[in-house]
Amino acid sequence: MAHSLVQPLRDAVVAAGFDAAAIVPGPNFLRLFGRDFHLMERPLVIIVPAKGDPVAIVPNLEMASFSKIGFDGEVFDWRDEAGYRAAFQAAAAALPQLKKATSFALEAQRMRVFEQLALAEVFPEASFTDGHQLISTIRLHKTANEVARLRKAIDISERALEATLSDVRVGQTEKEIEGILIRHMFAHGADGLSFSPIVAAADNSAQPHARARGDYNVKPGDALLIDFGATWQGLNADITRTCFIGEVSDYDRDFYHAVLAANEAGHKASLNGATAHDVDDAVQKSLEASPFAAFARHKTGHGLGLDVHEAPQIMRGNHQILQTGMIYTIEPGLYRLGECGVRIEDDVVITDGGSESLTHFPKELRLLG
Amino acid sequence: MAHSLVQPLRDAVVAAGFDAAAIVPGPNFLRLFGRDFHLMERPLVIIVPAKGDPVAIVPNLEMASFSKIGFDGEVFDWRDEAGYRAAFQAAAAALPQLKKATSFALEAQRMRVFEQLALAEVFPEASFTDGHQLISTIRLHKTANEVARLRKAIDISERALEATLSDVRVGQTEKEIEGILIRHMFAHGADGLSFSPIVAAADNSAQPHARARGDYNVKPGDALLIDFGATWQGLNADITRTCFIGEVSDYDRDFYHAVLAANEAGHKASLNGATAHDVDDAVQKSLEASPFAAFARHKTGHGLGLDVHEAPQIMRGNHQILQTGMIYTIEPGLYRLGECGVRIEDDVVITDGGSESLTHFPKELRLLG
Repeated sequence: MAHSLVQPLRDAVVAAGFDAAAIVPGPNFLRLFGRDFHLMERPLVIIVPAKGDPVAIVPNLEMASFSKIGFDGEVFDWRDEAGYRAAFQAAAAALPQLKKATSFALEAQRMRVFEQLALAEVFPEASFTDGHQLISTIRLHKTANEVARLRKAIDISERALEATLSDVRVGQTEKEIEGILIRHMFAHGADGLSFSPIVAAADNSAQPHARARGDYNVKPGDALLIDFGATWQGLNADITRTCFIGEVSDYDRDFYHAVLAANEAGHKASLNGATAHDVDDAVQKSLEASPFAAFARHKTGHGLGLDVHEAPQIMRGNHQILQTGMIYTIEPGLYRLGECGVRIEDDVVITDGGSESLTHFPKELRLLG
Repeated sequence: MAHSLVQPLRDAVVAAGFDAAAIVPGPNFLRLFGRDFHLMERPLVIIVPAKGDPVAIVPNLEMASFSKIGFDGEVFDWRDEAGYRAAFQAAAAALPQLKKATSFALEAQRMRVFEQLALAEVFPEASFTDGHQLISTIRLHKTANEVARLRKAIDISERALEATLSDVRVGQTEKEIEGILIRHMFAHGADGLSFSPIVAAADNSAQPHARARGDYNVKPGDALLIDFGATWQGLNADITRTCFIGEVSDYDRDFYHAVLAANEAGHKASLNGATAHDVDDAVQKSLEASPFAAFARHKTGHGLGLDVHEAPQIMRGNHQILQTGMIYTIEPGLYRLGECGVRIEDDVVITDGGSESLTHFPKELRLLG
């Protein structure tokens, strides 16, 4: 059991005083086993008890793939025609140490309610707690290999962005520009998209999670905000740049530079041993000291890795200490609703000596087309 | 209240005897409100009581977008710095009719555990039931507009597939062919991918949910299975074709035709008023009557629409009656582990007079390269 792939998860469960954790395919699964599954309505659940061997419930359809991941516990597979309840029952019977009132930590931002209900049915005395952050600590410190893969994902993204910005012309729709960006990402070697890209111009750029419009044509003076990232070997880039089409007003130029100053304050505050709070505080203070304080709307950033949003959350009140190998975004933004939004987002890694920006795409105000 | 956008959901809740339903962004949300949100760690939950007005809990960051969807109930927004618990408390206070022991139907295959835990905290006496299928009945009968959008998604997919198959050459890796396919999909107008495509050759084609390999070069005689689909305006195509590289053995040719016959049996059994069971039964009997019965591994198909996997599940034992406007896949497959897999998947819609295949891509055995 000492060399079990689930050992990091077991350690986290034991340290936090839980009796067991249950995980499903996703970033934590990928970190532990080196591969992932996309299962939709078919549950695949691994139960890791604090004491004893882990147990897996696996769709029969996936057994050939599952058998390759090096899972060292008992496996209960189930077929579509029989359904999964019997496999959950058999799994529970194989875990007698969890029969009495048991505390489960779950990946609550990943696991869906139907998987939890299946667990609750066979562990009727158990309590289920949101252990998402706890479980995800196994991914908090990135390996050198993960950092290298993220560098590659970022490199692909930045090449695609440069190619896209060169293609932007007055009169294109946001949707057209989004299509150009996506094609460039795959042409440059992306495995996939970290998330559906945000390509938003003019008033739409002021909506932090805007969708590209097919009926708005970009015109001189518009902001063009692009928030996107390529996935490469499981790692997710997440980058935002905001440019202007053709020309920029003095007011928007100042607006842009207020965001850029906040972004730079975030980099400066990103020190080994500082806290997530410190970084957000530096960024927010920079925004608050600008003439545009009223237009700030969100925290500085989030951790990044096998998941697009993970720990550490870079926000005031999070006194988590930043340590070597943690990776997160610095993405201050200002949003004048109905007019213009600017966000500038980098990905940084904490190093022994401080921090390093993994994104290198220029941040000087850029006019396009 | 009569014209509330949530009325179809309220009707379903009342008919099933629940006190309330709670939904999150996703296909049901999209059907009701005509747009979707991608929120990750930020909960957005709408509670629809059987009696009284609905209530929404919304991240402040999304309020500008949310205010446009036509939601007619009270909205409680929350900011990152304050967290979402107070908004859930306020929402519960606005729903006094749900204060006592209340039965909630949840989208259990969509909603994550942390959203359910937030509900459970403010409705401590409530019971939470998997109402995924119940709630999703609001999407069971597709509108003419949805069918038209799916036709477009399928048309994009089929053009991309033809372009891809023309580009396949001996010696390419599965990963290269996957990249070609994805670029063709976006070049032909896809909004996105229904799911990460499966491009699997030779032994890998025998794994129903295989991942493309970067280290295997396709060679003459290999099966090449491509399972993929484009998304267009929210609708998801889902198509599989299996071809062979350059040549095919007599054994594999017979193997292929056994799957094709089962696919055709599925089309024939797809009649208005038949059941999902009938369709799967016809398909399975066709496979069982072939010399390759031992290599069948899964049900015939699943519903398709705003979600990639939804009702009706086309499987034995599901006696749901097929009615006009239902859309599902017919995707029989045979899998010789370690050797070769063949799957042929179409998307069909039930019509007043029977059914119509929405996929038109040729199914004759095709040799590539």
